[in-house]
Amino acid sequence: MSLDERSALLIKYQSVRQQTERIVEPLSAEDLQIQSMPDASPGKWHLAHTSWFFETFILQPHCPDYDCFHPDFHHLFNSYYNALGTPFARPQRGLLSRPSLEQVISYRQHIDTEIERWLTEEQVDGDLANLLVLGLNHEQQHQELLLTDIKHGLSINPMAPPYTQGDGEQLKQMPQQDRDDLAELTWLRVPEDTYTLGSDGKAFSFDNEGPAHQRYQPAFRIASRLVTNAEYLTFINEGGYEQSRLWLSDGWAYVNQSGMRAPLYWRKVEGAWYEFTLSGLQPINPDAPVCHVNFYEADAFATWAGFRLPTEFEWEIAAWLHCQKSGAAGRGNMLDSGHLHPQAEHDELNAPGSSTVDGPQLLGNVWQWTSSAYQPYPGFRASADAVGEYNGKFMCNQMVLRGGSCVTPRSHIRISYRNFFYPHQAWQFTGIRLAGDDL
Amino acid sequence: MSLDERSALLIKYQSVRQQTERIVEPLSAEDLQIQSMPDASPGKWHLAHTSWFFETFILQPHCPDYDCFHPDFHHLFNSYYNALGTPFARPQRGLLSRPSLEQVISYRQHIDTEIERWLTEEQVDGDLANLLVLGLNHEQQHQELLLTDIKHGLSINPMAPPYTQGDGEQLKQMPQQDRDDLAELTWLRVPEDTYTLGSDGKAFSFDNEGPAHQRYQPAFRIASRLVTNAEYLTFINEGGYEQSRLWLSDGWAYVNQSGMRAPLYWRKVEGAWYEFTLSGLQPINPDAPVCHVNFYEADAFATWAGFRLPTEFEWEIAAWLHCQKSGAAGRGNMLDSGHLHPQAEHDELNAPGSSTVDGPQLLGNVWQWTSSAYQPYPGFRASADAVGEYNGKFMCNQMVLRGGSCVTPRSHIRISYRNFFYPHQAWQFTGIRLAGDDL
Amino acid sequence: MSLDERSALLIKYQSVRQQTERIVEPLSAEDLQIQSMPDASPGKWHLAHTSWFFETFILQPHCPDYDCFHPDFHHLFNSYYNALGTPFARPQRGLLSRPSLEQVISYRQHIDTEIERWLTEEQVDGDLANLLVLGLNHEQQHQELLLTDIKHGLSINPMAPPYTQGDGEQLKQMPQQDRDDLAELTWLRVPEDTYTLGSDGKAFSFDNEGPAHQRYQPAFRIASRLVTNAEYLTFINEGGYEQSRLWLSDGWAYVNQSGMRAPLYWRKVEGAWYEFTLSGLQPINPDAPVCHVNFYEADAFATWAGFRLPTEFEWEIAAWLHCQKSGAAGRGNMLDSGHLHPQAEHDELNAPGSSTVDGPQLLGNVWQWTSSAYQPYPGFRASADAVGEYNGKFMCNQMVLRGGSCVTPRSHIRISYRNFFYPHQAWQFTGIRLAGDDL
Amino acid sequence: MSLDERSALLIKYQSVRQQTERIVEPLSAEDLQIQSMPDASPGKWHLAHTSWFFETFILQPHCPDYDCFHPDFHHLFNSYYNALGTPFARPQRGLLSRPSLEQVISYRQHIDTEIERWLTEEQVDGDLANLLVLGLNHEQQHQELLLTDIKHGLSINPMAPPYTQGDGEQLKQMPQQDRDDLAELTWLRVPEDTYTLGSDGKAFSFDNEGPAHQRYQPAFRIASRLVTNAEYLTFINEGGYEQSRLWLSDGWAYVNQSGMRAPLYWRKVEGAWYEFTLSGLQPINPDAPVCHVNFYEADAFATWAGFRLPTEFEWEIAAWLHCQKSGAAGRGNMLDSGHLHPQAEHDELNAPGSSTVDGPQLLGNVWQWTSSAYQPYPGFRASADAVGEYNGKFMCNQMVLRGGSCVTPRSHIRISYRNFFYPHQAWQFTGIRLAGDDL
Repeated sequence: MSLDERSALLIKYQSVRQQTERIVEPLSAEDLQIQSMPDASPGKWHLAHTSWFFETFILQPHCPDYDCFHPDFHHLFNSYYNALGTPFARPQRGLLSRPSLEQVISYRQHIDTEIERWLTEEQVDGDLANLLVLGLNHEQQHQELLLTDIKHGLSINPMAPPYTQGDGEQLKQMPQQDRDDLAELTWLRVPEDTYTLGSDGKAFSFDNEGPAHQRYQPAFRIASRLVTNAEYLTFINEGGYEQSRLWLSDGWAYVNQSGMRAPLYWRKVEGAWYEFTLSGLQPINPDAPVCHVNFYEADAFATWAGFRLPTEFEWEIAAWLHCQKSGAAGRGNMLDSGHLHPQAEHDELNAPGSSTVDGPQLLGNVWQWTSSAYQPYPGFRASADAVGEYNGKFMCNQMVLRGGSCVTPRSHIRISYRNFFYPHQAWQFTGIRLAGDDL
Repeated sequence: MSLDERSALLIKYQSVRQQTERIVEPLSAEDLQIQSMPDASPGKWHLAHTSWFFETFILQPHCPDYDCFHPDFHHLFNSYYNALGTPFARPQRGLLSRPSLEQVISYRQHIDTEIERWLTEEQVDGDLANLLVLGLNHEQQHQELLLTDIKHGLSINPMAPPYTQGDGEQLKQMPQQDRDDLAELTWLRVPEDTYTLGSDGKAFSFDNEGPAHQRYQPAFRIASRLVTNAEYLTFINEGGYEQSRLWLSDGWAYVNQSGMRAPLYWRKVEGAWYEFTLSGLQPINPDAPVCHVNFYEADAFATWAGFRLPTEFEWEIAAWLHCQKSGAAGRGNMLDSGHLHPQAEHDELNAPGSSTVDGPQLLGNVWQWTSSAYQPYPGFRASADAVGEYNGKFMCNQMVLRGGSCVTPRSHIRISYRNFFYPHQAWQFTGIRLAGDDL
Repeated sequence: MSLDERSALLIKYQSVRQQTERIVEPLSAEDLQIQSMPDASPGKWHLAHTSWFFETFILQPHCPDYDCFHPDFHHLFNSYYNALGTPFARPQRGLLSRPSLEQVISYRQHIDTEIERWLTEEQVDGDLANLLVLGLNHEQQHQELLLTDIKHGLSINPMAPPYTQGDGEQLKQMPQQDRDDLAELTWLRVPEDTYTLGSDGKAFSFDNEGPAHQRYQPAFRIASRLVTNAEYLTFINEGGYEQSRLWLSDGWAYVNQSGMRAPLYWRKVEGAWYEFTLSGLQPINPDAPVCHVNFYEADAFATWAGFRLPTEFEWEIAAWLHCQKSGAAGRGNMLDSGHLHPQAEHDELNAPGSSTVDGPQLLGNVWQWTSSAYQPYPGFRASADAVGEYNGKFMCNQMVLRGGSCVTPRSHIRISYRNFFYPHQAWQFTGIRLAGDDL
Repeated sequence: MSLDERSALLIKYQSVRQQTERIVEPLSAEDLQIQSMPDASPGKWHLAHTSWFFETFILQPHCPDYDCFHPDFHHLFNSYYNALGTPFARPQRGLLSRPSLEQVISYRQHIDTEIERWLTEEQVDGDLANLLVLGLNHEQQHQELLLTDIKHGLSINPMAPPYTQGDGEQLKQMPQQDRDDLAELTWLRVPEDTYTLGSDGKAFSFDNEGPAHQRYQPAFRIASRLVTNAEYLTFINEGGYEQSRLWLSDGWAYVNQSGMRAPLYWRKVEGAWYEFTLSGLQPINPDAPVCHVNFYEADAFATWAGFRLPTEFEWEIAAWLHCQKSGAAGRGNMLDSGHLHPQAEHDELNAPGSSTVDGPQLLGNVWQWTSSAYQPYPGFRASADAVGEYNGKFMCNQMVLRGGSCVTPRSHIRISYRNFFYPHQAWQFTGIRLAGDDL
């Protein structure tokens, strides 16, 4: 690899790693210790695990004189259950008071020093460079999880504390929304055709995004904007959670077993709806996209509204046709905007009359539940090593989400990106875009 | 409807209803009372519920002078949780000692008398005739469930009692298999193309089999016969259940939580493998298809063998291309053969050298797990009434199985038929057919 | 043993065994198959297990030429988990459709024939005679359990079927109560002293009733009659189930986890309280003793009423002092009265003005929760054999009940008798007698 | 109250509060955040809750101008579920990252300042002084829980970290034991008599220790020393955990469900037994008392050894007769000794030949399971206020332990002290003293 390429890689490495540290800056050792449910991990664990990745897949196998920081960390911060031995039980991660946050930060610095030395001094071929880029994308995934896990952890606290302990200046204040500006919902229509979908692997992508493949698609239409809080509230108020006919069988069972009657972080206080956000408890903004709904809720809402969710293929086709060419893909509300909360889709984002050409913003704000089960693309083959096994393992019982959210790093997301969660999960920033057959 | 059509329908009605009664004939009131897990239902409940269907959807709404047999039965024998009120809790069905078997049989006779009277005396239009046919298909589904549920119930009993209480004459003895006859595994190759899949609805089919739709399919190959017990035993003996890399993440969790180390009904007795069958405990037949594996096991076996499971679309294309034209579809081991257990696939069924033309038998013996999540076909719309809601409700978290089993009535199965179960379930007669990309 | 003694024993044997068969006479094979919770056993199992006892402890060890009825029954019908090998898992007893009821009845007859032959032909010494008597007492315990388990099983059924399938003639109709007759509640006062308690073992008793021992007892008072449904209803109506201060910590947790708000079998139908009885659903009789309350409810009621439950020692002292001498012990409402339900305590039972001499009826109607944890008496030693181990095993986490109920055989109960159940259990006929310190 | 009395109380207050802070000194904010099971609480919670007690029961009701530190703390740090409103759910205490440790320490200082001011400036009558003393005893209880909860939390960590993070100097090294010194087990014999037991309430005691009352006691004997690790290891090696006949029914169920095969903190490493201690993983000391056994284990061991556990009354009588008069009560291994682990009972503690007069040490080292269920003494009446309700609430399902442990403050323990835990719990320092009837 050329010196320039190495230098660019080093800058990217430092940029991603520093972003992680900026995310945890407002938090105390205690905030980074807690694990509020088995699905989540403590912040401290994310800090360590992302470093463990570089140590395990780059430094240990490829730097002969690498000096291991601590022999127990390999076991403690491993999340890969297979080829690398049994990891520490996930639901107990929040019980590891040792190593301390201070030690974990030293561990990060140790890894950074070693990676930087390696990038400047060693022979780094293209495969290893790709592995480093994979590690950076892996860390960006954990940046999003850090924020969603911290949000869940703080949400348990009856004091509803904001993510920022101090005066909240780290967060941009949520701007007052002007209701007149809400973008009108229009339908993007896509004709039937055989489309090529998935990543061709020329730019970085995860293995599950490929191979590129053809797919016959009947005509369909997809909404130009996300479902709003006001629309979802109508669903609630009209008894959406009480009518079994709107729900999938498993969804109805989950509603009854969990007792849920509103999105995850909604709270009714003296008759008014609020939601817990990373800025603490805030009144619901009726124009902002509904967020923290699970797949069952998304599907039931779509049924109630007389529509359906898009397949992941429809979403991807629409994104290619309508968004990328217009450059809209780069303008969404993501981590870099600093809002850390979905924002109402205004006409400035979604110019009126332009819906078929350069208009709607499919990326950002919230991950959008699709109706597609997470399954391999035709010809998909998981790579045989420990790194590669990761995505293929989960191709059962989960649903695909597309588009990235307000806590996804901008450089991490792309149109072919496939996120996946279990249908009952809602602690990610997840929302709803409607679709329908084009009759 | 013409007199002839009515007469044909009456004969079909009587034939299906009598088949149900033949199935329960060897069983006592106690055998038909028990419910060995929440997924299963008591035999008595199946007898009543299938009658309830005709009462609820035909007699009550369409025969003004229908005389209800018992007012409580509507609630007790309803499995439709939605439009028809809350049914009696499924896991407690085995606790309904009243009504007695005798009363349930009277209920069946009452329904039969009324349906027969209606068919001969009333105006029966095409829609109602279709509803009756739906009821008969519904009853045939429950015939299969009756046998699988009874098998599970008896399997709990340490005495491993056969389904037939007496001397076993109701069951044909399982023939001694001649190992030399086992059909060789060959690969059926299918070229890439855009195929039309799904039922066009001209003949009877369930709503989830349609609409017919186009689908682009890359080239693939599919095995000419099912995976055998001997092959599966090799998987076990080579440590298949101990290697996490072979398993989906949820599958590995299930293996560890359940402790399973062999198919559901296999038992090791003094070092030798037996399986519990409807004829009691029997030695494993190495050449017979492996049966009662769940999706995770099927997927792990395929990974271990270096192949994969077919998609449901691949299965359907192969069945149309290779089987139907050869007439092979009608020759499989199904309920009507009376074996009630998978049989080795012999060359008589699968003539050597004929694999591309008239050869393999894709129907019968065992339901074949596909790699496809159970999802709606493009353009699918659940019908709005209580009958129609059924299949669409379950389009989440389940996997599609194809082909019918040794306890499926022959007239019930067809190539477009989509069965679906949760990936951990194995009490149906479920097995494995391998597939691969055609490289 | 003399011929006369043998003859008396034979008559007792036949009488107890026939009583068991009379209890199941109104029931179908299905009624005797079901097991509605792990604490209960199917009726068929009770029929078999009580026979298993005589086979295992008398016929097999002491009749050299005894011909075993069925080799699997030893395992299937064993409830003794220790010295006799692992029994069949209790919660699955309801899944044993085989052996059939018919076979179990043949098994009973086989045992009867063999025991009768043995009693008339063999040398039977005193120890063996005692073992036979133990077996008969064991069977009488199961007679009570048969009725309480059947009641629970039928209570699950939304049709609320009566124990008798037919026209109910097997059961005496519950008489209309004349409210004026309800016995007034008076207090029996007992002075402080050192009393001798427990069985001296001269007549038959279980090992846990002895040894007789001295115990210092401060002065106390105990209620002359049981708490009534009307009184308990006041507790409910005044918010008894909503006030944590009335409840033991574990009781309050149980109330909240179970959601219970009334005794086990109470049902509110259109604003009026009914209770499920062995005669089906019946209006609450305000004067009858409250029944099917658990220990937590009994304790909370006593706290609410300003009193406490008696210790088992107080109960026993009161019973000796007040009841036995008056002969009242023999006049309670027990199995032999045929009511199978608690009856209001009338003045005919409890003559006014006679409370200190011959009055109150401490035996019968309902088992009375005491405040005493079930623990060994001083000097208690469990006998070393399998029969003896039984009672001592349970001396942890359970509470003592005294007095017998309306389904206890009259010849089975005595003042020193100690019954014991977990504090959350209420499916036995359990009620409340108040006590207090004598200040 | 006199100035001297106030001054003495102030010194006691400061001494107890400082002791709490000394206990947490070696720990980080993260160590004090974690909660490793629902039975335990985080260290930070203990620090806050003990302060909450003084705020809630003294400062708020009795200091009119008391300035509340934080309005949410009343809810967050309340463990009294009843009279004071619903407390924060116990199993989620470990999720409260806010308030921070720093804030909780400020809260403690605020309370200390206010209490000290109140003690010096206000009128403090005897009742309030008693309430303060109750608060100090309450805090001492939590000092013990702090150490047992921290031990459990650290035990989860695969690195087996010691309580002291640094070089371990805060802890006295566990001395090498000289095996020859182990005190011989002799039997203390106590004659039958009527004894007066319980606290007369003249000195401080909890409500459950009284009232003083008479109790008839048959003759018995009790061991002069605790059961050792070596003795318990013999029980393990001779199959104690595999023989159901040794166990109470509930104990055997717990053994099988939990899979336990040794005391809670024992670990087998390469064939040798170690135990996790507050000094990290240490080899088992054969002569030290066995520790962290639950009641079922204690009872099974006693049965295996041919003895039984003492009743709490036997323990108390023995302690009065043999210990107090000899002054031995004050010499046990308790918190003040700094070992934080049970120590072998040497002859220096237990002078040879003196067993009947002044010898054995019943206090300290480990809490001793008695065979007595935790029940009220005759005449016990829970006081009506929120403070008083505490002990009586738990008088069900728990067993009494006596004697205090190596982490009990010396000034907190006394002969009449009744501790209580559920029979399956073992995370306290709990051990075994044998007893028997005196035949």
